[in-house]
Amino acid sequence: MAMSFHFHPLAASRVHFSPLPFAAAAGAPSPSSSVAIAAHHQHGRRRFSAIVATAAAASAATTEFDFKAYMGERAVAVNRALDAAVPAGEPPAALHDAMRYALLAGGKRVRPALCLAACAVVGGPEPWAMPAAAAVEMVHTMSLVHDDLPCMDDDDLRRGKPTCHVVYGEPIAVLAGDALLSLSFHHMASVGSYPPDVDPEKHPARVVRAIGELARCIGSEGLVAGQVVDLEMTGTSETVPLERLEYIHLHKTAALLEASVVIGAIIGGGTDEQIERLRKYARSIGLLFQVVDDILDVTKSSEELGKTAGKDLASDKTTYPKLLGLEKSREFAEELLSDAVEQLACFDKEKAAPLLHLANYIAHRQN
Amino acid sequence: MAMSFHFHPLAASRVHFSPLPFAAAAGAPSPSSSVAIAAHHQHGRRRFSAIVATAAAASAATTEFDFKAYMGERAVAVNRALDAAVPAGEPPAALHDAMRYALLAGGKRVRPALCLAACAVVGGPEPWAMPAAAAVEMVHTMSLVHDDLPCMDDDDLRRGKPTCHVVYGEPIAVLAGDALLSLSFHHMASVGSYPPDVDPEKHPARVVRAIGELARCIGSEGLVAGQVVDLEMTGTSETVPLERLEYIHLHKTAALLEASVVIGAIIGGGTDEQIERLRKYARSIGLLFQVVDDILDVTKSSEELGKTAGKDLASDKTTYPKLLGLEKSREFAEELLSDAVEQLACFDKEKAAPLLHLANYIAHRQN
Repeated sequence: MAMSFHFHPLAASRVHFSPLPFAAAAGAPSPSSSVAIAAHHQHGRRRFSAIVATAAAASAATTEFDFKAYMGERAVAVNRALDAAVPAGEPPAALHDAMRYALLAGGKRVRPALCLAACAVVGGPEPWAMPAAAAVEMVHTMSLVHDDLPCMDDDDLRRGKPTCHVVYGEPIAVLAGDALLSLSFHHMASVGSYPPDVDPEKHPARVVRAIGELARCIGSEGLVAGQVVDLEMTGTSETVPLERLEYIHLHKTAALLEASVVIGAIIGGGTDEQIERLRKYARSIGLLFQVVDDILDVTKSSEELGKTAGKDLASDKTTYPKLLGLEKSREFAEELLSDAVEQLACFDKEKAAPLLHLANYIAHRQN
Repeated sequence: MAMSFHFHPLAASRVHFSPLPFAAAAGAPSPSSSVAIAAHHQHGRRRFSAIVATAAAASAATTEFDFKAYMGERAVAVNRALDAAVPAGEPPAALHDAMRYALLAGGKRVRPALCLAACAVVGGPEPWAMPAAAAVEMVHTMSLVHDDLPCMDDDDLRRGKPTCHVVYGEPIAVLAGDALLSLSFHHMASVGSYPPDVDPEKHPARVVRAIGELARCIGSEGLVAGQVVDLEMTGTSETVPLERLEYIHLHKTAALLEASVVIGAIIGGGTDEQIERLRKYARSIGLLFQVVDDILDVTKSSEELGKTAGKDLASDKTTYPKLLGLEKSREFAEELLSDAVEQLACFDKEKAAPLLHLANYIAHRQN
């Protein structure tokens, strides 16, 4: 329901002010950042510098947390799970090769990390969420493979490498996407995907609910819906209204980020209240992810980004900087980060550190 | 495991003789058909006439069963579920329209009927299996939409109507297929899909297991694998060996028929032994379905079939009649029907009547 044809609540409430209880609760030097924020609040909106201060304060509260090591370890574990999920060389070899080519092409594995972190923040054993973490990466990869197709965005390069259809041909690329999609559900539903020391059959209701979340974020309420509206808008001469732009991003980007977090929380045994808090967190970072992408596209060189910079402008795609201007886009990013961080206040500080740092990473990444 | 890269056991044991315990157990005039079969057994193989006699005997034992009415009622119920699952006119309208166009284009709903009948034969309340029945039809439809694409089989007509990509364009057809695939899992996992008087949450372990079966029959162990090998074989000048032909059909056709039956039995609460018997039944009728398709292609006119007859020969596709000859193909069909019927012997006669008649229908259909 939540994702279906509703616009992001933040789009309608962009001017409201959210306090930053997490930073305060963290026992960090919150007075200074609070004062800074209050000053900006008097202008009716907050400044990017305030958020940077907040993030720094939050970071200071968890100085022991090594984000880079955290992400690196998760990426290794997720890559191992993905590698094991698709047999190399087994027939039909072309299909498995194409699936592996797309799936193991690198990437930061942000979605799996969100899934694992959400499982842990509600107190679940992290390994329980590994099949779900692998599944969300399979779904993400599948959507990239199909979106890159000649009949869609017709992209020849992805992460600096030739796209799946360029290497394996269009029919195999379509079929590899289909196979990855079904594999994601098979992986979540199979006892064999889970580590031997956990027993997913103890909690089949969680698995059913998580599968429902994953399925919902793909089709006509998620990724596919976003791509359909994106295709309709590309190359059109009319100005795309902000609501439509957000519809596209909420479906193409935020839906799967939301599902990644929510599925992790479900598998970890989160309460309904915890799951809904984390859903709000995920929606904010989902939109944040896209806003930052758009900002980077106009402020960074191609070399820094590892992809063609300014492509969105060149192809006449509607972006946040184009619609709001660069400064207002940055302010919107600030608010989204703040809203996300706010949702983490009720969780154990230490357990929430990965999700906090993931939000900061998404806001402040340089490519 | 079972479908993965293994050839059908029947392919290796085609000459063995199976008694027909179901017909005998049915209290039908089995002596006469047994004598007929025994006579043919002396020749080392059975004749089509023996199977017709067996089927007639089995039918006589369940004269009260009205197969046409049974199928008509199920088709109406399944169409209602499919109609409700995809909202008409809601945005993104093009996507939903394309999904509905493909999904509600008619068809006999054989797979949903198998699913419902398998649920009932193990004693499950039939409405429990309705979401699964709708899901298998969604998966079937999705595979047709993607197989028809210009980059695949490039078919312009399906069930006498223009194919999905002809009407809605290639990008929407790819995305409609993706959306139908994810919807099938969403539909099975959602409480809202189930009728109010049943409670699927009572048995989440069954739902997880059924979802695993459905997912397995789609990707690199099922439909997609079959399509990949089919594409590799089409237009090749080398003679396709029988094992490869069976690999294609077991994956493209039999895998989903097997899943339809097995999922129904799982949701209905069948024992592991019952489920495995029904799996064997389904494998036999899965291959039977394709053998009969091939026979019809060379023996019927296009008008009778409702599609272009002789297309397989014209496009140089390997078929059973081409590889085995027409007579031996018919004999193989006999054996498969007999093997399927044999698996039903241990079930209650009355409850097994739909599955028996479905097997007979698949063997003796004229289009």
